[in-house]
Amino acid sequence: ICLFLPHSLGEKMCTRMNDKYKQRHMWKILSQVDTEEKDSGTESCAPDFSTVYAHDLLPANNGEECTKHFLQEVVDILLNYIRRMFDRESKVLDFHYPHQLLDGLEGFSLELSDEPEPLEQILVDCQDTLKYGVKTGHPRFFNQLSTGLDLIGLVGEWLTATANTNMFTYEIAPVFIVMEDILLKKMYTMIGWPVGEADGIFSPGGTVSNLYSLQVARYKYFPEVKNKGMAALPNLVLFTSEHSHYSIKKAAAVLGIGTDNVILVKCNERGKMIPEDLEAKILEAKSKGFVPLYVNATAGTTVYGAFDPLNDIADICEKNKLWMHVDAAWGGGLLMSRKHSVKLEGIERANSVTWNPHKMMGVPLQCSAILVREKGLLQACNQMNAGYLFQTDKQYDISYDTGDKTIQCGRHVDVFKFWLMWKSKGSSGFEQQINRCLELANYFYKTLKNREGFELVFDGEPEHTNVCFWYIPPNLRGIPKGPERSRLLHQVAPRIKARMMEEGTTMVGYQPHGDKVNFFRMVFSNPASKKCDADFLICEIERLGDKL
Amino acid sequence: ICLFLPHSLGEKMCTRMNDKYKQRHMWKILSQVDTEEKDSGTESCAPDFSTVYAHDLLPANNGEECTKHFLQEVVDILLNYIRRMFDRESKVLDFHYPHQLLDGLEGFSLELSDEPEPLEQILVDCQDTLKYGVKTGHPRFFNQLSTGLDLIGLVGEWLTATANTNMFTYEIAPVFIVMEDILLKKMYTMIGWPVGEADGIFSPGGTVSNLYSLQVARYKYFPEVKNKGMAALPNLVLFTSEHSHYSIKKAAAVLGIGTDNVILVKCNERGKMIPEDLEAKILEAKSKGFVPLYVNATAGTTVYGAFDPLNDIADICEKNKLWMHVDAAWGGGLLMSRKHSVKLEGIERANSVTWNPHKMMGVPLQCSAILVREKGLLQACNQMNAGYLFQTDKQYDISYDTGDKTIQCGRHVDVFKFWLMWKSKGSSGFEQQINRCLELANYFYKTLKNREGFELVFDGEPEHTNVCFWYIPPNLRGIPKGPERSRLLHQVAPRIKARMMEEGTTMVGYQPHGDKVNFFRMVFSNPASKKCDADFLICEIERLGDKL
Repeated sequence: ICLFLPHSLGEKMCTRMNDKYKQRHMWKILSQVDTEEKDSGTESCAPDFSTVYAHDLLPANNGEECTKHFLQEVVDILLNYIRRMFDRESKVLDFHYPHQLLDGLEGFSLELSDEPEPLEQILVDCQDTLKYGVKTGHPRFFNQLSTGLDLIGLVGEWLTATANTNMFTYEIAPVFIVMEDILLKKMYTMIGWPVGEADGIFSPGGTVSNLYSLQVARYKYFPEVKNKGMAALPNLVLFTSEHSHYSIKKAAAVLGIGTDNVILVKCNERGKMIPEDLEAKILEAKSKGFVPLYVNATAGTTVYGAFDPLNDIADICEKNKLWMHVDAAWGGGLLMSRKHSVKLEGIERANSVTWNPHKMMGVPLQCSAILVREKGLLQACNQMNAGYLFQTDKQYDISYDTGDKTIQCGRHVDVFKFWLMWKSKGSSGFEQQINRCLELANYFYKTLKNREGFELVFDGEPEHTNVCFWYIPPNLRGIPKGPERSRLLHQVAPRIKARMMEEGTTMVGYQPHGDKVNFFRMVFSNPASKKCDADFLICEIERLGDKL
Repeated sequence: ICLFLPHSLGEKMCTRMNDKYKQRHMWKILSQVDTEEKDSGTESCAPDFSTVYAHDLLPANNGEECTKHFLQEVVDILLNYIRRMFDRESKVLDFHYPHQLLDGLEGFSLELSDEPEPLEQILVDCQDTLKYGVKTGHPRFFNQLSTGLDLIGLVGEWLTATANTNMFTYEIAPVFIVMEDILLKKMYTMIGWPVGEADGIFSPGGTVSNLYSLQVARYKYFPEVKNKGMAALPNLVLFTSEHSHYSIKKAAAVLGIGTDNVILVKCNERGKMIPEDLEAKILEAKSKGFVPLYVNATAGTTVYGAFDPLNDIADICEKNKLWMHVDAAWGGGLLMSRKHSVKLEGIERANSVTWNPHKMMGVPLQCSAILVREKGLLQACNQMNAGYLFQTDKQYDISYDTGDKTIQCGRHVDVFKFWLMWKSKGSSGFEQQINRCLELANYFYKTLKNREGFELVFDGEPEHTNVCFWYIPPNLRGIPKGPERSRLLHQVAPRIKARMMEEGTTMVGYQPHGDKVNFFRMVFSNPASKKCDADFLICEIERLGDKL
């Protein structure tokens, strides 16, 4: 039996709409039917938003109806955007230069004034903001490691925003604090750590998570640093591969260790750290009087998608009594896949792990965790016992007041969306999603391998979803390898990318790396992307680059 | 003319709903009217959510209808929550202990499994998450500096989540990057800085903003720290008042300066820094061979709401060539008020300012800015020139790629909600909102001053919205001031607070401070709060504490 219920958020559109507003509602006007009379008992008239202001919304007296209709309008705008975003016929972006946005585009003025704008203008501004943005969930957006838009994750963010609370104490975020605990325990389990002994916290991004790892390592070996600072410590050095993320250097700069004390370890042709070079550099540093502290191994490098040999690195760390961190911001998601988790073998031997569910697992931005094998270190390292937040005479178990573990005070709720996604798809859903992205990368690699005009940056099947390649325009194909060809090839990717953005058809990243001139980095993390999208990118690069 | 338009998100409810789900829809079922037939042409039947899963939503083939109905259900839940939240008759929270949440409450299981749950369960989980949370926007939630729920800010967050992008480059966040620039310029103007010369960035919270200030100060005086670390620097010390926020110490710990090198300056009875003590301590530190670097002045302390004398502190900083930071996380909002901005006189002389629009301006969490008077320092201090993000051969002005200014890599879009709120209420709207909160604090102070059984922690009209006080239960009123009375009084606030939370009627913070035993800190930042709510809190404290 299907019962019809009159919709609580029904609406009537009023006149006095400006042109843009009218345009947006055109589809509604066109589909208008003459049901005014018979529904007038159950539907309420939406206010004329050109004369209604923010202060008419809740908590204003009698603001309920207005709020209802306004939220409905907003949701319509967002839903239309989502629909277009997933439509392959729509553009990924509508590119404009900064000065164009600043000048105001078709009445989209970003300037702020003293006086309020009516809600009608707010709705138009919402539309325009989306119109001139980039559809990061589009099946043909391949530009970053974080792509896609998971609808359950989205709903999680909407609810999080509505709850509008802060992660510092159980007192004001009881459910979210417990969810964080449950998610962290799941993550410890996937890593292979005994759940009761590990520790962790969600942080605003992988770079901050990596900073935590170095901070905690320093505190573990030299707890006096908290009070006395680096002045009380010997000359520390740390190790990370030349393909690792720049956040390790950034952390060394912030923490007062200095980027000169970050020693780069060589990688093989696939971007994996060479353990022998690590060992040699540790010995060299020691011989120069430096004190090795920490090794960052990467599980899924940013550009090549390489996995460092974790067991070999763990052996070296154990032998030299160094802290082993695994930056699995990008590769951590593969732990969800029984097929691919083997690439992270040895991660259970790490002292700390960074894992960003907002990358391979498709959780909306931001969602990153720092996981530490030894319980209590995060707290000891960071706690300041602020009396106004972390009272010790509360009625509940104050170990749930996790805010004192962090380098933040206020902390955004990044766990609910992740928790809700896990509920909605189960571990098995994440596994399938990740396996599909890896299959797609494999397909893309195989296609490129056999395609004229494309050259892989390194050969071999992709371990992660990164596929790095050059496009060689016809005019360059006859030029023998050498400095001149390299100089020309270096300009190809940026020129194709610029055209791609101006046309708005797709987006993919490029960069130089080491001695390699600009190349494209293809990457798959959007569950909406299919083989046809990978094929499209190839054709589009050919189309845009053919005449270069 | 009011045109009726059939609502695109109309729905029909199907059977096979579980009990909780039925309960939620009871109001709809009760209001059911027999319009099934006449509307069947324009309304589509909502799917049976007990058999529909996340993978049926967009981007699934034919997922559009299901997505539409699902989002509509979610918005109904959120709207109902918002409605209840602003209703004074509803509870602020429904308190449970951590073990109760972990055990599962009335079928609300937080555990995660391998298999997916149907969307019906996801909707119920959303309801339950809100049910067992804390209504931070409730007019009687006074527990933190950030309270309230601005509907436009909320919409801003919903759109931000839908856009799901990252602040590192103009490339993938063009509109948001320009909005950040415009907002920052507004903030420089409010501070009184020449717009073209200043710099800034939004960060994940005031504690991180304060960390930036110290990091940038260190870099300004000792740029070698970036490469060489603290080992290359003299023994730095910094100064902050004993009433200042703990984030200054936290920053010193993180940056490798050490908390011992944070010198606490004495405050007067109102919690304002005593400039003479600052000057004396600077001289003392110098005489001991330390190198003074930085002074943090607070504009709106966390507990007392005190404003340090900025001009006096600026004089001392200039004389001693020290970096002057103003932590206006809490007090910055008062710059929007022509009446109250005088309390921040001298802020224009600061080298850096922290200002959290998520506090006094009511922007949803998180929204915090670090503002630096000298352009270029943030970039110089933090940039790592990562090739994969910050290509120098792009088609647009790459000074808009602001991500390299930050200590993060990925950065959440915290500006849109703020921008949209500013559009919707104008500077004048913020001004009115803030003035009203300050009036309310004044009313509350005056009420308490004349109320038997209440004692103010310090006398004098509030400068900000903080009012600190003890409640003296009848049994304690006869005990003369002394250790025994203090011991008993110390237990009063936590016991009242525990009962308050268990009954869920209201929430207010308490803490000890210096030599003062536990006292309540009342604070107003929620535009929904009125005099009756302030009165309610007083009565509630009396009711709950009467028998102690």
